[in-house]
Amino acid sequence: MRDVAVVGVGMTEFGELWSESLRTIWTKAATAALADAGLDSVDLITVGCMSPGLFVGQEHLASLLADELGMAGVAATRVESACASGGLAVRAGFAEIAAGLADTVLVTGVEKMTDVDGADATYALGSAADQEWEGFHGITFPGLYAMLARAHMARYGTTREQMAAVAVKNHANGLLNPHAQYHLKVTAKDVLESTLVADPLRLLDCSPVTDGAAAVVLTTVERARELAAGRPVVTITGSGLATDTITLANREELSELRAVRLAAERAYRMAGRRPEQLHVVEVHDCFTIAEIMATEAIGLFDPGFGGSAAADGLTALGGKIPVNTSGGLKSKGHPVGATGVAQVVELVNQLRGEAGQRQVEGAAIGLAQNMGGSGGSSVVHILEVVR
Amino acid sequence: MRDVAVVGVGMTEFGELWSESLRTIWTKAATAALADAGLDSVDLITVGCMSPGLFVGQEHLASLLADELGMAGVAATRVESACASGGLAVRAGFAEIAAGLADTVLVTGVEKMTDVDGADATYALGSAADQEWEGFHGITFPGLYAMLARAHMARYGTTREQMAAVAVKNHANGLLNPHAQYHLKVTAKDVLESTLVADPLRLLDCSPVTDGAAAVVLTTVERARELAAGRPVVTITGSGLATDTITLANREELSELRAVRLAAERAYRMAGRRPEQLHVVEVHDCFTIAEIMATEAIGLFDPGFGGSAAADGLTALGGKIPVNTSGGLKSKGHPVGATGVAQVVELVNQLRGEAGQRQVEGAAIGLAQNMGGSGGSSVVHILEVVR
Repeated sequence: MRDVAVVGVGMTEFGELWSESLRTIWTKAATAALADAGLDSVDLITVGCMSPGLFVGQEHLASLLADELGMAGVAATRVESACASGGLAVRAGFAEIAAGLADTVLVTGVEKMTDVDGADATYALGSAADQEWEGFHGITFPGLYAMLARAHMARYGTTREQMAAVAVKNHANGLLNPHAQYHLKVTAKDVLESTLVADPLRLLDCSPVTDGAAAVVLTTVERARELAAGRPVVTITGSGLATDTITLANREELSELRAVRLAAERAYRMAGRRPEQLHVVEVHDCFTIAEIMATEAIGLFDPGFGGSAAADGLTALGGKIPVNTSGGLKSKGHPVGATGVAQVVELVNQLRGEAGQRQVEGAAIGLAQNMGGSGGSSVVHILEVVR
Repeated sequence: MRDVAVVGVGMTEFGELWSESLRTIWTKAATAALADAGLDSVDLITVGCMSPGLFVGQEHLASLLADELGMAGVAATRVESACASGGLAVRAGFAEIAAGLADTVLVTGVEKMTDVDGADATYALGSAADQEWEGFHGITFPGLYAMLARAHMARYGTTREQMAAVAVKNHANGLLNPHAQYHLKVTAKDVLESTLVADPLRLLDCSPVTDGAAAVVLTTVERARELAAGRPVVTITGSGLATDTITLANREELSELRAVRLAAERAYRMAGRRPEQLHVVEVHDCFTIAEIMATEAIGLFDPGFGGSAAADGLTALGGKIPVNTSGGLKSKGHPVGATGVAQVVELVNQLRGEAGQRQVEGAAIGLAQNMGGSGGSSVVHILEVVR
């Protein structure tokens, strides 16, 4: 298996980009990543996108976007695993280079979510749940995560205040990220008194609907050394992919995210790393409870201690293990197909020492955890600076 | 790069399967392929499906189906490139084994197309065209392929009778395939006098709307030898993937399928093979003109000679190079996400000498060509019996 490195990163501003289309935001991220890599051609383009069919009426996206970039002819593929589609795009590019099928891959993620009206966006996102066992009964994602939150509260005593601490932290980080959707300080009181969405989750426990795109360029480590021009070379040392039942009804235990645990175990095993060795982590905080459960599932904290870790500042910038320095899905925004790629963009910025005001000093090993639905799938990647 | 073999194949009957759901047909194909391989677990599941969001309101398909099969936890991924999604699923599984990321992969393709009403199926399929440059103006796929047919007729003198010969041949082959949607002999007169759809294409020039699923199990060649139990070991020696502009308006030339030519060139190069060495071929005959153009693009015939080759019987069973022995999309049916996988199922049956009445004697090298949209993407695989 060949070693794989990231040699370029790019992303758009995340937000409600009314004057842009899916094509234009994707092209901005793609050209930014290629420029950062110093490349003007690749062997393969991978596109992570959850539902261009339901959001903008367009499938066959990888070919369409290859043409948009002036690269018609290039190999291109779209991958989908709901909100983990971006992580899958990274995995697909990683596999092709590892196999020797491609030498350079433009990995991208994109979602244009605000071109549909509110009801349709909820329907499109709802297609990540089990339509026969969940959607049929009218439940949508805030309700599904509310059930996970209730299970975690009942088993471990996790509190509303601990969940609010996640939102406060991620909005504080988002203030330092020029690409974030929100530059908005929120207090625990703001979160706890925001509109109730699905008890116990309130508006400020939820990530927003977002337009955005992100891209990274992968190549072999040998080629990355040639392209580095004095910047640190960042490699992908671990890649793990796992599923769980989509429908919560089929799970043995609701207080744990099993797909995340399995994906992380697979990634740690490939990388030969342990959670204690990480310096910076991006997790999939689509809801505040999701960050708490994800930090437990990837082994940063024992089960039941994710909430107190957030409340005690262990995951803040300057804390024991900074989580979601980018602002996370909560504050940076959550264009679902782009999210997993944007996590890798943040890690590369951190590992190169180019994260500006939110830089984690000495960050050399990072982990990105992307998740589909209410934990029905997860993708985990471990990135390291080559010494 | 590790060598990859196919150790199991399975598919459902193709047709209007009103009493089945996407889950049930997928599971039938998957379990048939696993049983054929003699395996009850895999490292990865890949799912090719064009638009479960638009057809049945369900994304996040790979996790859902892994659970349906009782394998929640396994790594799983969905890939999409419109009607080439099945071919992409084969490529994704091939890459993971070649890289050493997985040892066994269940590669699947599925589409449930008849649960929506007629207008919606046309809309869903239309999302494979460029929505801003083609769909916006109201054109759908018969119209797009009619333009390709007109260009081919104008440049090379291809005739309506030559196109009809493709339909006659593929329906004759479909009569010999128990899984085919149609067991219906058609004559040239039937085709030439069938309802006009988009001049010059008539109803019997078009593939149908179909429900169906297909699956193949991939593993390393070493493992395949252990599992073979006396049957021939079939390997994938070439895999090529390419794009072209989706919108016909951006193409320099309409009488050639450039993505198909590029994908085939890449597959031939990897396999170290030439078109003259093939014994059996499956191509993407979504319309009769598509088979003519595809047989030219993969190098079976010089440009402009695909039509006369069909009319002269060169591509019939017993001809110089049998094409679409399965009945092709035209007669076997075209559940879009399943088609590329079903092509590989047919080749494996042929290369194992298990194709029954439609067996090509001595078939040892075969090629499958799958295509998205009006040639906006293509995937080509070359399969060979290990001697």
